[in-house]
Amino acid sequence: MILEKINAPADVKKLNYKELSLLSDEIREKIVSAMNGNGGHLSSNLGILETTVSLYKTFDFPKDKLIFDVGHQCYAHKILSGRKDRFDSIRTGGGLSGFPDSGESEYDTFTTGHAGNSIALGLGLCTARDKNKEDYYVITVVGDGALVNGLNLEAVNASISKPKKFIVILNDNGMSISRNKNGFYNFISKATIKKGYVKPKHAIKKVFGESFITAFFRGIRNFFKRILNKAGYFERFGFKYVGVVDGNDIKETTKVLERVKRVAEDKAVFLHLKTTKGKGVKDAEERADLYHSVGKNMKCSAVADISLGGVLNELIEKDDKIVAITAGMKDGTGLSALEKVHPNHLFDVGIAEEYATTFAAGLAKGGLKPVVAVYSTFLQRAYDEIMQDVCLQNLPVVFCVDRAGFVGEDGKTHQGLFDLSYTTHMPGMTVIAITDKTELKPALEYAFSLGTPVCIRYSKTDLNLSLPEFSFDSWQTVKDGSDLTVIAVGGAATRLALDFAGAYKKSVKVICARVVKPLDEKTLSVISTPVITIEENVLSGGFGAAVSAYLAANNPHPVSFIGVKDKFVAHGSVKEQLEENGFTVDNLVSVADGLLGTIDK
Amino acid sequence: MILEKINAPADVKKLNYKELSLLSDEIREKIVSAMNGNGGHLSSNLGILETTVSLYKTFDFPKDKLIFDVGHQCYAHKILSGRKDRFDSIRTGGGLSGFPDSGESEYDTFTTGHAGNSIALGLGLCTARDKNKEDYYVITVVGDGALVNGLNLEAVNASISKPKKFIVILNDNGMSISRNKNGFYNFISKATIKKGYVKPKHAIKKVFGESFITAFFRGIRNFFKRILNKAGYFERFGFKYVGVVDGNDIKETTKVLERVKRVAEDKAVFLHLKTTKGKGVKDAEERADLYHSVGKNMKCSAVADISLGGVLNELIEKDDKIVAITAGMKDGTGLSALEKVHPNHLFDVGIAEEYATTFAAGLAKGGLKPVVAVYSTFLQRAYDEIMQDVCLQNLPVVFCVDRAGFVGEDGKTHQGLFDLSYTTHMPGMTVIAITDKTELKPALEYAFSLGTPVCIRYSKTDLNLSLPEFSFDSWQTVKDGSDLTVIAVGGAATRLALDFAGAYKKSVKVICARVVKPLDEKTLSVISTPVITIEENVLSGGFGAAVSAYLAANNPHPVSFIGVKDKFVAHGSVKEQLEENGFTVDNLVSVADGLLGTIDK
Repeated sequence: MILEKINAPADVKKLNYKELSLLSDEIREKIVSAMNGNGGHLSSNLGILETTVSLYKTFDFPKDKLIFDVGHQCYAHKILSGRKDRFDSIRTGGGLSGFPDSGESEYDTFTTGHAGNSIALGLGLCTARDKNKEDYYVITVVGDGALVNGLNLEAVNASISKPKKFIVILNDNGMSISRNKNGFYNFISKATIKKGYVKPKHAIKKVFGESFITAFFRGIRNFFKRILNKAGYFERFGFKYVGVVDGNDIKETTKVLERVKRVAEDKAVFLHLKTTKGKGVKDAEERADLYHSVGKNMKCSAVADISLGGVLNELIEKDDKIVAITAGMKDGTGLSALEKVHPNHLFDVGIAEEYATTFAAGLAKGGLKPVVAVYSTFLQRAYDEIMQDVCLQNLPVVFCVDRAGFVGEDGKTHQGLFDLSYTTHMPGMTVIAITDKTELKPALEYAFSLGTPVCIRYSKTDLNLSLPEFSFDSWQTVKDGSDLTVIAVGGAATRLALDFAGAYKKSVKVICARVVKPLDEKTLSVISTPVITIEENVLSGGFGAAVSAYLAANNPHPVSFIGVKDKFVAHGSVKEQLEENGFTVDNLVSVADGLLGTIDK
Repeated sequence: MILEKINAPADVKKLNYKELSLLSDEIREKIVSAMNGNGGHLSSNLGILETTVSLYKTFDFPKDKLIFDVGHQCYAHKILSGRKDRFDSIRTGGGLSGFPDSGESEYDTFTTGHAGNSIALGLGLCTARDKNKEDYYVITVVGDGALVNGLNLEAVNASISKPKKFIVILNDNGMSISRNKNGFYNFISKATIKKGYVKPKHAIKKVFGESFITAFFRGIRNFFKRILNKAGYFERFGFKYVGVVDGNDIKETTKVLERVKRVAEDKAVFLHLKTTKGKGVKDAEERADLYHSVGKNMKCSAVADISLGGVLNELIEKDDKIVAITAGMKDGTGLSALEKVHPNHLFDVGIAEEYATTFAAGLAKGGLKPVVAVYSTFLQRAYDEIMQDVCLQNLPVVFCVDRAGFVGEDGKTHQGLFDLSYTTHMPGMTVIAITDKTELKPALEYAFSLGTPVCIRYSKTDLNLSLPEFSFDSWQTVKDGSDLTVIAVGGAATRLALDFAGAYKKSVKVICARVVKPLDEKTLSVISTPVITIEENVLSGGFGAAVSAYLAANNPHPVSFIGVKDKFVAHGSVKEQLEENGFTVDNLVSVADGLLGTIDK
C-alpha cells in the first residue's frame, strides 16, 4: 500500500510514474469506500483523481495555492493534504467537509461551493502576491460547466494581461452536471489541438533531437494552432494555451504539468485537460450524470414520489404555455420527468442562474408561463435579476426554490437559509413556503393564477404531515390554543410546532404560514397572545422579523424567534442541524417559558 | 422642421436619407436642450442617435421589439415613439423616465437600467414568440461595456443555436463608462472586418451587377472573414456577424440595417457598429467619460469636496496595502482622485460587479486591504459573491456603497433602497451608515481595524449635519428626550428626526445609528419609550425590522417605521421622493400621534 506512506504532500513527490498510478488506484478505492458509507459527489472526484495526484507531484502545496471551482471535486486533494485518516468522516457532522473549507485546512485556499468564482479568486490572489513581492503558484481547477458561468467569463475577460504563475486548468469532461451544449464549449472543443497531433513532434524529437526539423514542425504547429485551431483565442485573453491533454493519464499529465510550470514562470497558462467523469467505476462512467451525487451505499438519487417535473407534466396537459428552466440541475430539481414527456417545455441553460432568470423574464414577457427551478443557495446568484428583470417588470415568473432550509451534508456553501430574507424584500414578490411536495401542484396553480412574480420554497425531504385542507388565501390554524401562538413556516417547523404544542404545559395555538409574503395581516391583527415564530432561515430579514415588525406597529405582543442566528451552518445531517439551531421541543419549551415568564412578571 | 411632422414611427419611414439626417440634427438639439434643463445621460444618447433613427426607418415598432441594455441611451427612441412633446419633462417627477419603462410606453419593451440583461431578455422573448407562432423582430442595443457583463456573456454562450429575427446591435464606442480594455473587446476589435473592405464589392456590383466576379469576391471575403477576421467566432455562437459599420453615418447604417433585416429572416445577426460617444457636441466628444452623465445646465458631475479617492489617498500614505476596485465607475464613485495620485492602487474591472467582488476576496486573501466602491443598486448584482466569497471566508473586504437611499432623477432601476436589507442578513457582515462624507475617513479606519467584511453606505449628497464627536462603538444620542425615541439611519433621516423633535409637542430623544449591524443592543435594552425608526431603505428586512425584532424579544415596546413600503420608487428629485415616502415632519407627527395614542388607550 502506497497511500499508507503518504502522510504529507512531500511524500508524493518521491514517487515514480508507476507508483503515482498505484497511488491513484488506492485513492480511488478509498473514495468509493467513503461514498458507500456517507454518500457524496462521486463522478467528478473520480474524474479529476489522476490530475490531482499529478498536481501534488509537481507543485508545493500549501505554499502554492490550489483553488477548486465549485469545490465538490476536492476529495483526492483532501486525502493527499494530510486528511486521509479523517477522510471516512467526510460530510458527517464534525467530520471533514465535502467541499474545500479554509477553516478546515490551510491547503483549502478558499471555502468554495458555488460555481464560477475560481478564476476571479485566483486573479485576486496573484495580484496581491505580486504586489507583496511573494512567490508562489496559483492554480485553479475548473470544470467545463463552471467555466462558462458569467462570473468566470467576466474574470477571463477582465484584463488582457494576466499574472505570471497563474494556471487555469480546464477539467473538461464534456458535461457540466448534465450534458453541456453551450457556445463556448462548442468553440473550444473544435478550436483546440487534437491530442494525437502533438505526438509526431515527440517522435521526431527522439530521432533528430532539438533540430531544424523540430523547429520547422513547431512553426507549422503554431501556424495551425493560431489560424485553424484558434489557440490565439486564449492569447487574446492573456493566456498561453496548452492542450488537449488526457487528464486521466498520470504520466502524460505530470509531464505536461512540469512543462506548464516552467512556461508559467513568464505567462499565465490555460491548460485544457480531457477527463472521464466517474473514471474507474463502470456504472459511474456510463451514467456520470446520475452518479454526480450519490447517497449512502452508492445509491443514485432516488426519484421522489412527487417531482416538480411530474407535477408540471400534469399542468402542461391543461396549459401549453407552461415551460420550465433549469441551470444545469435537471436531475436534482426533478425536471428530468418533464424532459421525458414534454422535452420542448424544458430549457437547461447550464450553470447560469442569472441567465436562467432573465431569460425567463423574456419568456414571460412573450406570453409564456416560465417556472425557474433552482436550489435556494444557487438562486442567490440571480438576486439582482429577480429584482430588476422579474419584479420590477412585474412579470409572472414562478421560482421553484428547492433545497430551502437546512440541506444537511453539503454544508455551509449550500444551505438554503437566506431565501426568505432575500426574496421577501423584493417589491411585488409573493413568497410561498409549502410544507410538503403534495402541496406543489396547488401552489403552482395558485402562483399561475396570480400572474405576478412568485417564489415557492420547499425542502428536499417530505414529512408527510397530512395537514387538513387549506387555501393559500390565509394562514392555516392547525391546532387551537389560548396562551401562546406558534407560527411556523415549512414542514419541519410545523411538525416541531405541533410536537411542542402537544408537550407544553400551556395551551398553544399552531399556525402554519404557507404564504410568507404578503403576511396574513388579518390573522396577525387579532392575535392576543405572545408569539413564537419558527423558520428554517436566518432570523435577520426573515419571517419572524416581518411578523414582529407588523405586531410592533399594529398589535404589540412579545415575540420570540426560532431560526438561524448570524452564522453559516456547517455540514452534518439535517437532524443535527435542526438540533444545533434550537429546532427542538426542549428549546421551544425553554423559549416559551422565558417569553411567558416575561409577561407574567 | 422635420421633427414637427414626426408624430408616430410611421412618419419616419417616409423620410429620405437627407431628411433622416436633418431629423437627427433636430433630435440632437432637442436632447441637448433637455439636458441643459434637467441633466441626464448626454454622451451615450448622442452617440446612438443616428442608429436609432435608422432603426425607426427600418423596423416596425412597437410590433418589433427594441431593448436597450443599460437603457440610458433611449432618448431618441422616446422622442420618435410619440413622446416628443413630453420629452422636456424627462427625469423630473411625473415626467418621462430617463430609462425605458414598460409602464410608460408600449415601445419600451422592458424597464431596464442595470447592465447585461438585454441579450437574455431578447432570447427569452424570441423563444416565446416562436413558441406562440408570432412574427416580429427583436432587436437589442448593447454597448461594448455592457456586452462583457457576465449576464450577457452567459446569454451569448447559452446555446449554439440562436433564434431567427433576433438582432444584437453592438454599439461600440470603445469605452464602457470609462475606457475599456478587456479581453473580449480586444478580441473583437481586432477580429472584425475593416469598414473600407466591404466597399470594393459595392463598386464592382455597380458595374457588373450580381455576376461571377461578385460571387468570386464574396468567396474571398468569406474566406478572409472566416480565417483572418474570425467572424467565425460569432458563428460558433449562432450569430451571423456583420460589421464594422459607422453607426453615426445614417445612410450607411440604414442600408446595412435593411440588409440585416433580410439576413435575420433566417439567422440571428450580430451587428457591430462603431459610434462616437457625445457625437455632435464638441466637449462631449472629447471628454465622453466626463459627459456621460451631466447635471442641469450641462454641468459635468461636480467633484465633491470630499471624495472616496481623496480619502483613500490619505489612508494609503500610512498603509500601502489599501487598494480600491471599481466596476467601470471611476468618476461616479470618486476614485478618479485616487487614480491621479496612486494609479497602482486602483483596479477598474469594467461593468462587472460580480468579478469586482470576488477579485477583491482574492486580494484580501493575499494580504491586501481592498475597498470595493459600487453604487448600492449595482452592488445587488454581487449579492451571492458578497455572501459566498467574502462573508463565508470572513475576509476583510470593505464595500463603499455609494448612492444609498433615494437617488432622485435616475429612478426605479437605480434606487439604493435595498442594501440595508440584503447586506445585514449576511453572517459576519458589519454594516455602517454614515451621515455625511466627513465620516468616510473614520468609517474606513474603523472598517480596516475590524479585519472582517464591512459595508459603508452613504448617499450622494452631504447635508453637513455637524454632529458632535462620535464613535462607531455605540449609537449616538444627538438629542435627549423622554416620551418617544426616534432612531435614524443616515444623514437625511437624522436631519428629519432632529427637525421633528424640535417641532413635536412631546419630548423626543433622537439617536443616530451609524452601525446598523450589529445592533447596539446595549442602547436598545434600556429604551423605555415607544420607538420610531427612520431609514432610506425598504422596510422589509431593514433596520426597523431588526430593531423591532430585538425589542419584541427583549424589551417589548411599540415601534413605528418610516421607510419605503413594498414598491419601486420612480424618478423625481430626492426631495420629492422623501416627501412621497413619508419622510416629512408632518408625517412623523402623525405617526407619533398614532403610536403614542395607541399606548395612551
